[in-house]
Amino acid sequence: MVLDLSKVRHCDILTQEIKDSFGGFLTESLNPAFLSELLTALPEAAVLRSPDERRPYECDGLSAYRMLPGVVVLPDTLEQVRSVMELCQAYSVPVVARGAGTGLSGGATPHPEGVLLSMARFNQILSVDLLACTARVQPGVRNLAISEAVAAHGLYYAPDPSSQIACTIGGNVAENAGGVHCLKYGLTVHNVLAAEVVLMDGEVIEIGGETLDQPGYDLMAAFIGSEGMLGVVTEITVRLLPTPPTAKVLMAAFESVEEAASAVADIIAAGIIPAGLEMMDTPAIIAAEDFVQAGYPRDAAAILLCELDGTQSEVDAEMEAVSALLLECGARSVNIARDESERERFWSGRKNAFPAVGRISPDYYCIDGTIPRRALGEVLKGISQLASEYGLRVANVFHAGDGNLHPLILYDSGKPGEFERTEALGAKILQLCVSVGGTISGEHGIGLEKIDQMCVQFGQNELEQFHLLKAVFDPNGLLNPGKAVPTLARCAEFNAMHVHKGKLAHPELPRF
Amino acid sequence: MVLDLSKVRHCDILTQEIKDSFGGFLTESLNPAFLSELLTALPEAAVLRSPDERRPYECDGLSAYRMLPGVVVLPDTLEQVRSVMELCQAYSVPVVARGAGTGLSGGATPHPEGVLLSMARFNQILSVDLLACTARVQPGVRNLAISEAVAAHGLYYAPDPSSQIACTIGGNVAENAGGVHCLKYGLTVHNVLAAEVVLMDGEVIEIGGETLDQPGYDLMAAFIGSEGMLGVVTEITVRLLPTPPTAKVLMAAFESVEEAASAVADIIAAGIIPAGLEMMDTPAIIAAEDFVQAGYPRDAAAILLCELDGTQSEVDAEMEAVSALLLECGARSVNIARDESERERFWSGRKNAFPAVGRISPDYYCIDGTIPRRALGEVLKGISQLASEYGLRVANVFHAGDGNLHPLILYDSGKPGEFERTEALGAKILQLCVSVGGTISGEHGIGLEKIDQMCVQFGQNELEQFHLLKAVFDPNGLLNPGKAVPTLARCAEFNAMHVHKGKLAHPELPRF
Repeated sequence: MVLDLSKVRHCDILTQEIKDSFGGFLTESLNPAFLSELLTALPEAAVLRSPDERRPYECDGLSAYRMLPGVVVLPDTLEQVRSVMELCQAYSVPVVARGAGTGLSGGATPHPEGVLLSMARFNQILSVDLLACTARVQPGVRNLAISEAVAAHGLYYAPDPSSQIACTIGGNVAENAGGVHCLKYGLTVHNVLAAEVVLMDGEVIEIGGETLDQPGYDLMAAFIGSEGMLGVVTEITVRLLPTPPTAKVLMAAFESVEEAASAVADIIAAGIIPAGLEMMDTPAIIAAEDFVQAGYPRDAAAILLCELDGTQSEVDAEMEAVSALLLECGARSVNIARDESERERFWSGRKNAFPAVGRISPDYYCIDGTIPRRALGEVLKGISQLASEYGLRVANVFHAGDGNLHPLILYDSGKPGEFERTEALGAKILQLCVSVGGTISGEHGIGLEKIDQMCVQFGQNELEQFHLLKAVFDPNGLLNPGKAVPTLARCAEFNAMHVHKGKLAHPELPRF
Repeated sequence: MVLDLSKVRHCDILTQEIKDSFGGFLTESLNPAFLSELLTALPEAAVLRSPDERRPYECDGLSAYRMLPGVVVLPDTLEQVRSVMELCQAYSVPVVARGAGTGLSGGATPHPEGVLLSMARFNQILSVDLLACTARVQPGVRNLAISEAVAAHGLYYAPDPSSQIACTIGGNVAENAGGVHCLKYGLTVHNVLAAEVVLMDGEVIEIGGETLDQPGYDLMAAFIGSEGMLGVVTEITVRLLPTPPTAKVLMAAFESVEEAASAVADIIAAGIIPAGLEMMDTPAIIAAEDFVQAGYPRDAAAILLCELDGTQSEVDAEMEAVSALLLECGARSVNIARDESERERFWSGRKNAFPAVGRISPDYYCIDGTIPRRALGEVLKGISQLASEYGLRVANVFHAGDGNLHPLILYDSGKPGEFERTEALGAKILQLCVSVGGTISGEHGIGLEKIDQMCVQFGQNELEQFHLLKAVFDPNGLLNPGKAVPTLARCAEFNAMHVHKGKLAHPELPRF
């Protein structure tokens, strides 16, 4: 089969046709002069060329999208990263940076003609400042490793994505990662203070800083969540928080999803910000209970898990207030974990919900959208309606406190057409989120996965500004091309454009 | 005197020569076709042309810098703002947006050939969402008016600049305003969720959103603190917080500034984030005490005021911990306000410190820099050394908890050369802040005032990125030209460039 490679560079998403058509000999298709310069700039062992060596990098956590990278590089110094970027700029070669590859939206899906830049060897914690409560780390340091390194000093790093044992802080920065504790302690953007960044032309800039306000435009916030499209982060300063002296969890069971949803809104409206406020519906409860026997009521329509942390007296006072509120909102039972082992048992069901769902279905697809808390009940009902329309089952297990939904669509990739139907249902769910004033992402990013839905989320003016901003940092569009921000042409093809204050412009999108 | 107007447009700061040379007839110097189109787009009463009408707009809170604007417009609809921007773009006329004019760094100093765009008539609170704890407001709404409007619901808007009774939320967004409570509750950037913005070409974009994570690049953070150089904000969604049930304040007195400074660092390092942690030195204590009899010890080298808020039991527990820490750090006395009236008395000295200093000196100049807390003692000593070198007195009253210094330089504008010496001392103090790893701004912004110090703060790479980013939103450089980000040529003239990790590149800058 003859493939027009020019299509790949310029298409704004990798089509299935292109995905299918690469055999694995792409390093050979790279410019030999470029490769030879790369091998001069980096030790030979840091440049992976054979298909077998490149295979482990062909996808991130969104494994439905696979693409063998042209070449994989594993630099271990700033100078080497700069050389890679300078060479890519000189030869117009696309670059995709990668942390641990645990991302769920395809942000690190490689480019077949490009360099996959793994930051795995940047794995040092450079310094910890106990007075300022900050740590300076390299991007390849694992999220949990930071908390482990400072635990003896009574400190921790707050954002805790489910993948925290494996994912790296560099990937967290790229995707603005969240987690259970982000309701109270914020996302990555609220917990990263400064970074050293290599730009596409090899220039190094330092952005952010340890002080509260920074002069100049806030490039730090723009970089966090930019999915590797503005530059490559080579050093990160994170904020460390004191470990709370006490944490307690309660579980409340409800006869209806709507009551549970309205209880969530009421807790936050009462001015209580729990350390975590999670919700699971019946399918998720049953799957988790069958898997780890967490003590969940299998006949409840929904449960809420609410963790409160702080001083003992503060936690006691808030526990009382939350319990009263939950009962007022119609909870049929409220159980406060009596001790640490019961607390861990309550959490075990939530923490194992994804693998638990994996046991009851050959495959599942995790959607990530965010909605205003007041719309929780309405949207959960809408999801269940859409699921019946598409003939698919959905289990809901999510960060209810910040309105961040994670519907898990159960499907069987062995059945022809079922994955496509699953993708279509996922897209409808995200559009539903947008239609109630929410967004198509909570914490997983856009990547390749949700690029069409960006056309629903944003209008032409906003997308144009995004492209202009991108061009400032990467005028030739070499950094992670085709991710995160769709072209206007793509949106026109997708035939959906613009939501204004919760109203969808396109008539075919679902309304509830 | 013949003035070369082309100089004004293209110079990157208004020189004294230019400042002195305008008489007040500049509206006449604007393009008549532009003026006539402006008068078609806006009601005649919304276009101020006579020198007397324009006079009140000639400066903001940095009143040492004055400039009569070419014309003042007071739009009251989005459509009118768009028309003003479109016309300015078409005729290449500079635009300076203005809130209440309380800014302290000259961010709203007018352009003599340009439009001063007052947002004063955008003064409506559009809606309050009690479930989401947010309010949608127009930019001309006063900071305090938001808290007043929602107080009955037990909510408030946290950032509290000293000028909060007068300053507007639009100006707060432009300068990323702070205040006493920002240590615990964050700056404007942490409390504003979304905005509607008119770009230089009249396009309207919506940035940010009420959900925790937003897809696309984080333009919201880039806009906050961009000093009106990227666009004009026409609507703002702010986060509201529940009013804490209890607040208590203590005052600790110290025999040395260094001990007080080290106590500040120790409190934060212990994991306690007070609602406010303020410090005053002897000159500030005496001035305040003479003015309002707050009960401060006139013979102390420094006092700390520490406010804790939360539930009663939480506040009690933290009060105890902080008191013990302060005594360990060498406080000679710790007084906890016994009741609300004593609490208000303790605060009255701090809140009136600026006018109190105004009573003992014909003029004072308020500097705004931020340093790592661990450097507090060292920098305060350095400031006092520099003050003697320059033969000027300095009173220190500042947000110690977040390292945000406000040295007040006392001077007499009647004495020839004293203001210039004051400006020079201020610059040295800011450079000292940078040399210990701090920044030249805490909460007042850069504006005209600190544009030279930006050359010390940032290197060429960072400044280039700032200019490129600016060009995305305003390719012709019409929005607030000459503010906030210096040209590289200017930095070369200033003969200082780049600080790398707290090390100043330029040998003449002060070192301690």
